[in-house]
Amino acid sequence: MGNQPIRIAVDAMGGDHAPREIVRGAILGARQHKVGLQLVGRPEAIEEELARIDHKDVDYQIVPASEVIEMDEHPAQALRKKKDASVVVAAKCVKKGESQGLVAAGSTGAAMAAALFNIGRIDGIDRPAIGVVLPSISKSCLLLDAGANADCTPEMLTQFALMGSIYMQNVYGVQRPRVGLLNIGEEEGKGNLFVNEAFPLLRDYKPIHFIGNVEGKDLFNGGVDVAVCDGFTGNVALKSAEGVMKMFGNIIKMELKRTWQAKLSYLLGKSAFDNAKNRVDPEEFGGALLLGIDGVCVISHGGSHARGIQNAVRVAKGAIERDVLGKISQNIREGCVSHESA
Amino acid sequence: MGNQPIRIAVDAMGGDHAPREIVRGAILGARQHKVGLQLVGRPEAIEEELARIDHKDVDYQIVPASEVIEMDEHPAQALRKKKDASVVVAAKCVKKGESQGLVAAGSTGAAMAAALFNIGRIDGIDRPAIGVVLPSISKSCLLLDAGANADCTPEMLTQFALMGSIYMQNVYGVQRPRVGLLNIGEEEGKGNLFVNEAFPLLRDYKPIHFIGNVEGKDLFNGGVDVAVCDGFTGNVALKSAEGVMKMFGNIIKMELKRTWQAKLSYLLGKSAFDNAKNRVDPEEFGGALLLGIDGVCVISHGGSHARGIQNAVRVAKGAIERDVLGKISQNIREGCVSHESA
Repeated sequence: MGNQPIRIAVDAMGGDHAPREIVRGAILGARQHKVGLQLVGRPEAIEEELARIDHKDVDYQIVPASEVIEMDEHPAQALRKKKDASVVVAAKCVKKGESQGLVAAGSTGAAMAAALFNIGRIDGIDRPAIGVVLPSISKSCLLLDAGANADCTPEMLTQFALMGSIYMQNVYGVQRPRVGLLNIGEEEGKGNLFVNEAFPLLRDYKPIHFIGNVEGKDLFNGGVDVAVCDGFTGNVALKSAEGVMKMFGNIIKMELKRTWQAKLSYLLGKSAFDNAKNRVDPEEFGGALLLGIDGVCVISHGGSHARGIQNAVRVAKGAIERDVLGKISQNIREGCVSHESA
Repeated sequence: MGNQPIRIAVDAMGGDHAPREIVRGAILGARQHKVGLQLVGRPEAIEEELARIDHKDVDYQIVPASEVIEMDEHPAQALRKKKDASVVVAAKCVKKGESQGLVAAGSTGAAMAAALFNIGRIDGIDRPAIGVVLPSISKSCLLLDAGANADCTPEMLTQFALMGSIYMQNVYGVQRPRVGLLNIGEEEGKGNLFVNEAFPLLRDYKPIHFIGNVEGKDLFNGGVDVAVCDGFTGNVALKSAEGVMKMFGNIIKMELKRTWQAKLSYLLGKSAFDNAKNRVDPEEFGGALLLGIDGVCVISHGGSHARGIQNAVRVAKGAIERDVLGKISQNIREGCVSHESA
């Protein structure tokens, strides 16, 4: 990996603001982070966007793909029907080794399925998980699974814990990442049957540093580095958090319009409010990771603008550079037992 | 119910700030909402607090209880050991009909167990649920179960839906409350095995107005009046939302200290920020409801101050006055089938 220049395949057609914001963000990210690009999609649409922006110093190539999977399509069905979908072609670029990472802002389900079918899993990993780095005041927490597997076996959580620990250690520089089991109380024995089965497996799993149960609030207070849960619970936690922040932000905005003092406060505090908003903005974090796929995959928010894609390129580059996947493979080979299959 | 004056039993000893804030809040609530009180706990401690405040116009009596269940005790074990615990004695006041409602700010598990063993369930309800009214810009949503039953059967969600609908209709005046199933996508077929079993039961359950799946974000955007889920999922959603709001509030505070403009903005906007904070403060909502118990039970946040208890008295009075429990019973008799037991 060391000397080969890094190249990232970007699905230029996926996302609410594709292709414009995607192409712009990819070019900005490639320039800032010094990586090459494969821009995948309808060539004329991509070229039209490229013509509008400065891209002379960026090493890119356009990879044609004639179809696009829409946000509301059923992932597996869409994949069967649209063999030449941009996200599929982009995943194949990674499989062939032309790129080392994939960035996609379209349907999460479609990107997941495209990666799974076209790139495949890391040997020994039963199911890939979606990992999301959450905003916080101090130390960020990686939540996984944030939605890839609605139903999980307790054993799967040990693999999530391993992958998450390796990611946080290598990309965020966290020594001995603290792994917590997302639960509804801190004491052992709390929670439902599923977490009660998972608890002893995590406790006895040597490669990780398990600190016990954590609660929803701990995801955002720096109390844990890696929080593991089934994909249903993780997705509900994530979307509830997004929803309440949006609501709270709107309430503050409304209150700051009520009196002239409040209006003046808003004007004076504008940049502080913008900073606060940016610090919790999913676009700032660049997107979710598909951990367990045998190629770096970053899935950006469907509503991503150029900044979100630019940051997704940063996230992908970080995972490639630190060889997160290689380290996961190595750990699996050295002792992690696969639970479902050989 | 009509002519009998309403009386509410308050566990004066439960909660981080008991007995001071509890007694104060109870007196304030009783005066504001014109109800009588039974203050349950150590008489000398209660009298000491009463001596500090004006309470002449409030109809109260002190009911002695010599023990207190602490926040970190195991609920069932504590109940077996402490027969004369304040929350137990308060529940018995409701059972005997001396009070029509219970307000408790101690351990949720202990209050739940005390209510279940001493007051009992409504006939035909298999399991009580914790219902929490969530903050929102416009229409509030009742989330249940927010933590009473970590494992649920799909059938239990229909009873939660019924109880939640009756509550929102009678207390919040919502006509035909929209019931949603908390899930990780809107389309039918999304989610885990549990919600996929629950979906058709809710869809075919005549007494409620089922609108399909809702997501975490919908809990806070006015899109649904009653959101049902198992107690594990509901508790994670609730605590994640609380955690992220706290974090976001702290980030805003930090940003508003960085520059002199920002500091001035904070001074000018102080009352707007306080208003915004109050609008999402759990104390403003008074507490969670134990729906399914055959007596009105309101469980306030363990950290409640007087304002929280004052509002809990309001919530209890509302449920008593609108005869929410009688209406649940009536609906159960008229057609809801009990699933576990006769």
